[in-house]
Amino acid sequence: MKPVNIGILGLGTVGRGTAEVLRANAAEISRRLGRAVNVFMVSTRDEAKARAACPPETLITTDPFEVVRHPEVDIVVEVFGGTEAAKELVLEAIRHGKHVVTANKKLLAEYGSEVFALAEEKNVMVQFEAAVAGGIPIIKALREGLSANRIRSIAGIINGTSNFILSEMREKGSAFADVLKEAQALGYAEADPTFDIEGHDAGHKITIMSALAFGTPVNFQACYLEGISGLDSRDIKYAEELGYRIKLLGITRKTDKGIELRVHPTLLPESRLLANVNGVMNAVRVNADMVGETLYYGAGAGALPTASAVVADIIDIARLLGADTGNRVPHLAFQPSQVQAQTILPMDEIVSSYYLRVQAQDKPGVLGRIANLLADQNVSIEALIQKGVVNGDTAEIVILTHSTVEKHVKAAIAGIEGMDTVNGKVTMIRMESLND
Amino acid sequence: MKPVNIGILGLGTVGRGTAEVLRANAAEISRRLGRAVNVFMVSTRDEAKARAACPPETLITTDPFEVVRHPEVDIVVEVFGGTEAAKELVLEAIRHGKHVVTANKKLLAEYGSEVFALAEEKNVMVQFEAAVAGGIPIIKALREGLSANRIRSIAGIINGTSNFILSEMREKGSAFADVLKEAQALGYAEADPTFDIEGHDAGHKITIMSALAFGTPVNFQACYLEGISGLDSRDIKYAEELGYRIKLLGITRKTDKGIELRVHPTLLPESRLLANVNGVMNAVRVNADMVGETLYYGAGAGALPTASAVVADIIDIARLLGADTGNRVPHLAFQPSQVQAQTILPMDEIVSSYYLRVQAQDKPGVLGRIANLLADQNVSIEALIQKGVVNGDTAEIVILTHSTVEKHVKAAIAGIEGMDTVNGKVTMIRMESLND
Repeated sequence: MKPVNIGILGLGTVGRGTAEVLRANAAEISRRLGRAVNVFMVSTRDEAKARAACPPETLITTDPFEVVRHPEVDIVVEVFGGTEAAKELVLEAIRHGKHVVTANKKLLAEYGSEVFALAEEKNVMVQFEAAVAGGIPIIKALREGLSANRIRSIAGIINGTSNFILSEMREKGSAFADVLKEAQALGYAEADPTFDIEGHDAGHKITIMSALAFGTPVNFQACYLEGISGLDSRDIKYAEELGYRIKLLGITRKTDKGIELRVHPTLLPESRLLANVNGVMNAVRVNADMVGETLYYGAGAGALPTASAVVADIIDIARLLGADTGNRVPHLAFQPSQVQAQTILPMDEIVSSYYLRVQAQDKPGVLGRIANLLADQNVSIEALIQKGVVNGDTAEIVILTHSTVEKHVKAAIAGIEGMDTVNGKVTMIRMESLND
Repeated sequence: MKPVNIGILGLGTVGRGTAEVLRANAAEISRRLGRAVNVFMVSTRDEAKARAACPPETLITTDPFEVVRHPEVDIVVEVFGGTEAAKELVLEAIRHGKHVVTANKKLLAEYGSEVFALAEEKNVMVQFEAAVAGGIPIIKALREGLSANRIRSIAGIINGTSNFILSEMREKGSAFADVLKEAQALGYAEADPTFDIEGHDAGHKITIMSALAFGTPVNFQACYLEGISGLDSRDIKYAEELGYRIKLLGITRKTDKGIELRVHPTLLPESRLLANVNGVMNAVRVNADMVGETLYYGAGAGALPTASAVVADIIDIARLLGADTGNRVPHLAFQPSQVQAQTILPMDEIVSSYYLRVQAQDKPGVLGRIANLLADQNVSIEALIQKGVVNGDTAEIVILTHSTVEKHVKAAIAGIEGMDTVNGKVTMIRMESLND
């Protein structure tokens, strides 16, 4: 069979990785696919670099629109990055009847509905395995492997930078700022780390997975984001004493009232596999009605793991070239006519357990008053430990609550912060048992 | 679109589970697939039971050949069990142009090549996600998700019965025989548990995965099998003191000399995720050249998890009905013309580290003599601990070796067993670091 021609937009880390995987494993890929994958054309600002990364016959251009419009290109690989320019290029590629593989989670989380609608109209495929959790085939699991199930919830460690920082803070007891510097020196964190450590990146990924799980449009605006920059290593230590690890999780869950969609630091029981995923590694736990709990683990970033997903998508598309639209895996896992908007719950309405840390004066009656304020809101206490005196007469009180609605905890916290024997803000971190 | 008609052979646990998943999740499945899945016909010995499990319009027969030959059946679901009769039915279904979904690992591990060859010839699909690790979509990951990679090795906890027994032995310090009785009482082990505890079941599964990983024919005869019935709970305890857990692993690995294909109890460093997979759960770790390490975890058995995989296969086939053979995922992950037999290494030639336990008289010079016998075979020692006196004057010596070729360790063991200061047999358990 004739080779399938791909055009790559951008030769950054993932673009070069894609060329490298196609070069190094050309024989193996052809053994699996039954035809060759040919890097027909690339667009780049640095032609010399492109020459070194691509086969001699590859056409090189500085104009990405030349790639998306070229009649010989079958599949466009968008590893351009950013949103506005990438969106224009992807839409133009689709208008020209090209299938698209993209690693761009931001593009899909923010403009996925527009992209997929045009792809439906033009009868082309847009694949995006590399956009979520790098080399882990989690999109395939959600769209195909678990297709017999109603999915109940997804919880994932889906930002390697944050997980590396939290793992180091726990192992070494270091402060956030120190570990961030270490991560930057090792290349695990960007010079401006905001996107990773404040939960934006994880938010894009959990937004995409939520749509696939529940058959809803992608809706990043509704995703609650809370990062790890405010985490105190004391909380990591106290959590560990209580049998928990703190992880930055992306969580989405279907409830009777609506869908939960949120990213925040989370206490997990240490016996859970997710709690034992360390360093830059990613893992996604899916709970579904028939299969129960499944978990998918692997590298969430890096040139070659991400390219592994890009090339798997190329192979999937090549296998389906010429197949009818009706015969394909739908972009959002559900048939386009069956994608339905659903309420995304405001954070006040989510149900969780909570870790609270209160700095209070070491006086009689303080503990009782705090317990009463929680009871007034129907928040019941699972564990309460007093961590002794910190500064002079200030004691730290750590509380684990049972499951409750978030607004009740927030009301209790407001009351506790209003006590004249309590100093400053109450630290609140959500907990997940991963039992449901 | 018109519903896809399935015929189910056998209404045992998985057959009834399949009917139940299709009933309970009919709406969700139709939202994903764009058409309904109809239980058109079932064969069973117990018509009353079938009537209760299936929709009222389902045809019920006691003759399974009626199902595989019925012109209205699109997909045959083989959950008949056994090999000879199941093989005849599957081949007859293929001859009649039916696509087949099977959960029968024994059939595929022993007769897969014959089944897949006929399917190629007749242009039909044979899907078997449920045959390996129940509800975990590991076949999909190997055939599609990791298709850009050269796979290096697979190591899996793929028998829930054995993993439950080992988990209980470790947690409670119980003897194998006692835990087996408990497992039987809980329904986790069969009355005749041989198939599970002696590694046959795991052998079938790792044989299938090995073929998919390396593009070879299925070759169960070449798989080394060693079960857990001979394990002493003392070894589990000693391993734990040294920082290891013992798991029954199926392992396959490509080396320069050939392919390793083996099932045996294995020491794993406790920090590894695989070492923390407990109870009846399954997990498969895959190491591949581009993506690195990925791991897949979930329920390996049970009516609904297994049916989840059966139904996912039905959906995959329904999506591809009418597609050309060239456009499909090949049965063994590689194009039929590219499937190549490769040497399966005899166990003497595999490379591993080893845990050895020696019962020796508590006399001067014994340790030195043992160390010399190992050194004579170029086996170097990573750790050696003397566990003190067991019975009167008998001491237990536990040794961890560095990586070496198995025949050298066996030669050293033969020498050690020949010492007149050593009692009985040396216990040998293989170790895997999961670093490669």
